[in-house]
Amino acid sequence: MELNPAAFYKLNARCCVVVSTASPRGISNAAPFSFNMPVSFSPPIFAIASNPGHDTWRNIRETREFVVNFVGEELGEKMHILERDYPYEVSEIKEAGLTEVPSKKVKAPRIGEAYAWLECSLYDAKELGDHVLIAGEVLLAEVRDECYDRVVDVARAKPLLHISGEYFGVPLARKFRRA
Amino acid sequence: MELNPAAFYKLNARCCVVVSTASPRGISNAAPFSFNMPVSFSPPIFAIASNPGHDTWRNIRETREFVVNFVGEELGEKMHILERDYPYEVSEIKEAGLTEVPSKKVKAPRIGEAYAWLECSLYDAKELGDHVLIAGEVLLAEVRDECYDRVVDVARAKPLLHISGEYFGVPLARKFRRA
Repeated sequence: MELNPAAFYKLNARCCVVVSTASPRGISNAAPFSFNMPVSFSPPIFAIASNPGHDTWRNIRETREFVVNFVGEELGEKMHILERDYPYEVSEIKEAGLTEVPSKKVKAPRIGEAYAWLECSLYDAKELGDHVLIAGEVLLAEVRDECYDRVVDVARAKPLLHISGEYFGVPLARKFRRA
Repeated sequence: MELNPAAFYKLNARCCVVVSTASPRGISNAAPFSFNMPVSFSPPIFAIASNPGHDTWRNIRETREFVVNFVGEELGEKMHILERDYPYEVSEIKEAGLTEVPSKKVKAPRIGEAYAWLECSLYDAKELGDHVLIAGEVLLAEVRDECYDRVVDVARAKPLLHISGEYFGVPLARKFRRA
């Protein structure tokens, strides 16, 4: 069936990351983004697309830093809390009962319950349609030891995927070798 | 553990789409991309990141059109064929034993075996690091009836996810309701 083209994003399941930032005064913010992707290997660049009015973009614009938190399905029920529009400088991390952990290279905090983290500095930003495409250079990548075996171990990390609304997913591992 | 930041893309499982294009002479091309994301709702924009030397980018630059094919895990073994660097104007679709189907709004063909298709026109392109970020406006979105029930039915469509190399995945459905 043909769909309204505006429903195009309901056709796949995408990795759901949580992006954490800090205001210039140091108050944390966090929000889920399923509009995200790696862009470049060298330099390593990871991009998200954000509503331009979102506190995430306000903080990144002002501090030029953010953290990409890769989260597992056990945090699935927290996404609806993190996506709420709390007043600026109310920390969604605390509202969701999650743990702020200091980062190593940026002032934006990590979320302790995530299974992996990318500490990023703003590389480029551009408005595209009704979103801002925010590209960050990956300064540091870290993963829980038990969740990595050459690549992410999806059976252990259970990375959260999102389709839309209440529809989420979690990957089962598959291998397809070169013939 | 800390990883080389260049390994950042091995930390999640991403939707693996196949992008099909046509050369100005009408010869088809197709290649898998796991660097992809929705960017904007209005206009509806979908982006991929491509190696700038890739035939996909050459065709999009010249024709300003492409099709995003959402594929299921039964096509997983074809990805290594589609990603090979065949000579320009050798069709990877035919080499992989897949079926070219005419699109409705663009000259680039669809891949018949996919479960959903986005017909796109070039909206914007920008070099970011060692890739080109190619943004397309979604002109038409279509899905197999049996694979859609308010959102993609992942149990039926079995959308192919990719991590890197031979490591793939397929999503299991989860629901997380607002409290």
